[in-house]
Amino acid sequence: MFFDVIDILGTIAFSISGVLVALKKRMDPFGVLIIAFVTAVGGGTLRDVMIGIEPVSWMRNMTIVYVILGSTLFAVVFRKRLSYLRTSLFLFDTIGIGLFTVVGIETGIVAGIHPILCIALGTMTACFGGVIRDILCNEIPVIFRKEVYATACILGGFTYFLLRELTADTNIIFVIAGLVVIVVRLLAVKLQISLPSLYKDEA
Amino acid sequence: MFFDVIDILGTIAFSISGVLVALKKRMDPFGVLIIAFVTAVGGGTLRDVMIGIEPVSWMRNMTIVYVILGSTLFAVVFRKRLSYLRTSLFLFDTIGIGLFTVVGIETGIVAGIHPILCIALGTMTACFGGVIRDILCNEIPVIFRKEVYATACILGGFTYFLLRELTADTNIIFVIAGLVVIVVRLLAVKLQISLPSLYKDEA
Amino acid sequence: MFFDVIDILGTIAFSISGVLVALKKRMDPFGVLIIAFVTAVGGGTLRDVMIGIEPVSWMRNMTIVYVILGSTLFAVVFRKRLSYLRTSLFLFDTIGIGLFTVVGIETGIVAGIHPILCIALGTMTACFGGVIRDILCNEIPVIFRKEVYATACILGGFTYFLLRELTADTNIIFVIAGLVVIVVRLLAVKLQISLPSLYKDEA
Repeated sequence: MFFDVIDILGTIAFSISGVLVALKKRMDPFGVLIIAFVTAVGGGTLRDVMIGIEPVSWMRNMTIVYVILGSTLFAVVFRKRLSYLRTSLFLFDTIGIGLFTVVGIETGIVAGIHPILCIALGTMTACFGGVIRDILCNEIPVIFRKEVYATACILGGFTYFLLRELTADTNIIFVIAGLVVIVVRLLAVKLQISLPSLYKDEA
Repeated sequence: MFFDVIDILGTIAFSISGVLVALKKRMDPFGVLIIAFVTAVGGGTLRDVMIGIEPVSWMRNMTIVYVILGSTLFAVVFRKRLSYLRTSLFLFDTIGIGLFTVVGIETGIVAGIHPILCIALGTMTACFGGVIRDILCNEIPVIFRKEVYATACILGGFTYFLLRELTADTNIIFVIAGLVVIVVRLLAVKLQISLPSLYKDEA
Repeated sequence: MFFDVIDILGTIAFSISGVLVALKKRMDPFGVLIIAFVTAVGGGTLRDVMIGIEPVSWMRNMTIVYVILGSTLFAVVFRKRLSYLRTSLFLFDTIGIGLFTVVGIETGIVAGIHPILCIALGTMTACFGGVIRDILCNEIPVIFRKEVYATACILGGFTYFLLRELTADTNIIFVIAGLVVIVVRLLAVKLQISLPSLYKDEA
């Protein structure tokens, strides 16, 4: 129940971020809807397809579909006022990647995948919706360039498997690993930390 | 039989549209062939992979493969005269998306997918070959920007499920829903209607 | 055993080529890792997903995962000296596409796919890692434009099925078909042959 609420908040944040990028690219309404959709479900879809969970998750969960349709409509109607929501959106988005990371990891564990690859699956679930969004909008995916995003997911993933050595309580593991993702990202943004490009010091 | 012919006409149109875009990008012959291929089968492949129909449809249908190879050869050889065919091509393409939309919807129904998602699958089948073509050619996918394309597919999809409440004759449903897609698109192009970008009125 | 070594050499070469492209785009360390990963496994992943081999191959082969992690670390640390390795890298890469082409073909044969499509699968396995790398970096995939790359794979594929008419010794077929890919590519680069763009002679 608690996690369902967080899942829905994350989906809302991802959908709205899709709408914002699509509007900037002057897409028509259905283009906007499609971008919102892939931003919200792209990462999980890629994960499911690679593992072999088909039909993919969102095809068996109409709640998520309605949440995406609703958030898109909301974001389009109130698009001029979304700047007031910027902070809340960033918070939802950060909570979303925290949750999606852990969901991705647990999906991998259930499928019997090696821990290192489970961390990769968690990171993919959290980040690749945004990657596909940026590719469809013809931009270099933002996660590759600016933000401590994948890094936060990977650290959360390591935390998850460390905790599994210490406790069997999956709820505790879930919450702490998710919090690590969230805190790392919040701190990084707050302190304006980003990983250096390795290329610059070439010069 | 009738539908096989239409399916082949649609595949021809999609292949040739792929060749035209690839030639403009100055690709070499095998690049042109690959772009023609993904334009023709990309949408159906994505649909099949998400539902779990594997090997994907075109791997079990050599007729389609030969049609794509033949159309590509034809389009490359007669590339200087293709402008004379522009109207016929547009017609094939429009018939193609009409058919592909309904095929996508019916594939979803057989797999037990929710109607709203079947409409999404139909739209994906019709439109995402062109989306992948544009991504491979490093352009913002044209369907997100200019034409009443996805919109026509979505309207055809709603028609499909409306008709299912009224009749059990799947042939009639197939033909009418496909015609809705085709007519909406023809009218939109004829009357130069396109959905407004939501961004413009920001200014 | 012999093939395992070649497989690993190919994976190293592909990972490093991913690192080089990602560094040029000024990506952060995790961006670089992700690009290295998709360059090495992207083609095989696409093949596996389309055929229905899931979880995809690299999720069941930790050796490959460690090889990619190690090569990426190596390439990042020694990035300033990689230009000395350019020739060796090109050789690894060429050996890699030779091997990956034949691996892709054999995967298709095992899955009961038609020979023509097996050649397509082999070409996809060898080339699409680089295609996905270039898309993530927002460039027109290089294989579509400059090099005799897909062409070498396709010629190797035809050789594979020709030889199957002549002998039942799959090891011989494997080696000769792989060599055809390698020799065609080496010769083409040596003699600076590339397929002409079909568009130029339009003028």
